Amino acid sequence: MGVKGEQTRARLIAGTRELIEAQGYSGTGLNRIVAATGAPRGSLYFHFPGGKDQLVAAALTQAGQEVEALLAALAAGGADTAALAERLIEAFAERLELSGYTSGCPIATVALEVAGTNESLRTVCAELYAGWQRVLAVRLEGEGFGPAKAEAAAGQALALLEGAALLASVHRSREPLDHARHAVRHLLGG
Amino acid sequence: MGVKGEQTRARLIAGTRELIEAQGYSGTGLNRIVAATGAPRGSLYFHFPGGKDQLVAAALTQAGQEVEALLAALAAGGADTAALAERLIEAFAERLELSGYTSGCPIATVALEVAGTNESLRTVCAELYAGWQRVLAVRLEGEGFGPAKAEAAAGQALALLEGAALLASVHRSREPLDHARHAVRHLLGG
Repeated sequence: MGVKGEQTRARLIAGTRELIEAQGYSGTGLNRIVAATGAPRGSLYFHFPGGKDQLVAAALTQAGQEVEALLAALAAGGADTAALAERLIEAFAERLELSGYTSGCPIATVALEVAGTNESLRTVCAELYAGWQRVLAVRLEGEGFGPAKAEAAAGQALALLEGAALLASVHRSREPLDHARHAVRHLLGG
Repeated sequence: MGVKGEQTRARLIAGTRELIEAQGYSGTGLNRIVAATGAPRGSLYFHFPGGKDQLVAAALTQAGQEVEALLAALAAGGADTAALAERLIEAFAERLELSGYTSGCPIATVALEVAGTNESLRTVCAELYAGWQRVLAVRLEGEGFGPAKAEAAAGQALALLEGAALLASVHRSREPLDHARHAVRHLLGG
């Protein structure tokens, strides 16, 4: 693929990320994606022969991997897992605030929309969440948690983050995330 | 309004609740509501002159008030707030399991979809969540928490519930809710 092709592909994914985050999966039609990105409809099907679902899967995967990379970067500082989870929650709070309370968890809206209706996209979301949880669980094991306890505690931390991000979006306030930050230290010990 | 009118109105709300829970706000068109409920389109506008958004608001409100009533019923047993929150999480887990993992939190999907795009429905969702949180906070105050601490702890419990319900839907597993049940006791003390 040439440079121009790569650029078009990247533009399609970036535009789709923005649209699905603001309006969800069902609210984002291909016409909107074409209009927002300026990409010709033909190039959309060239890069994503599977159409909307393939494009949405690519957008979710990119957004999810960015969160995982953020976790890895935050972890590089050598903080304990509780501090790592606190920083991730803080990063979500800052992102939400900076966006005027429109950008919460980049995959949650679509995840809930597709959970009961679109098995392939549900699987994409499930794997992304599992990836984030795994990063936390592996570190908790390194801090002496047994495998089952580490997985459970990592899941609790992720649930807190996701629920607080949901409430923060709905209330247009970072307060639920601030409270979650305190709770996560309590839960992960430290 | 006659009995028949009341029945039609109730059928419209019940049908809308089911559709928005399964497919979200954007995925639920008025045509689908009319087809699913068998209500004539004219009666839809007779009962809900504001159209789809008024109908969705009524559906969300009914679902949210049912959760609040469930909380009140669970509280009548005289349990402490931690036990109350555990039972609410258990009720969500049972509901999810019984539905074949399609019925999570009855307002979360729409809440995320509309948070940045539909101010009047966002407000409906925000008030429902605030109502649930208030029930928990008032009880925590009764157990000796100061007002600010009670509000924060109630918010943490609600975030755990909502995030765990999201993860449970996405993973098609009640495990995140089971882990949240243990965490909520830890958070609310007891």
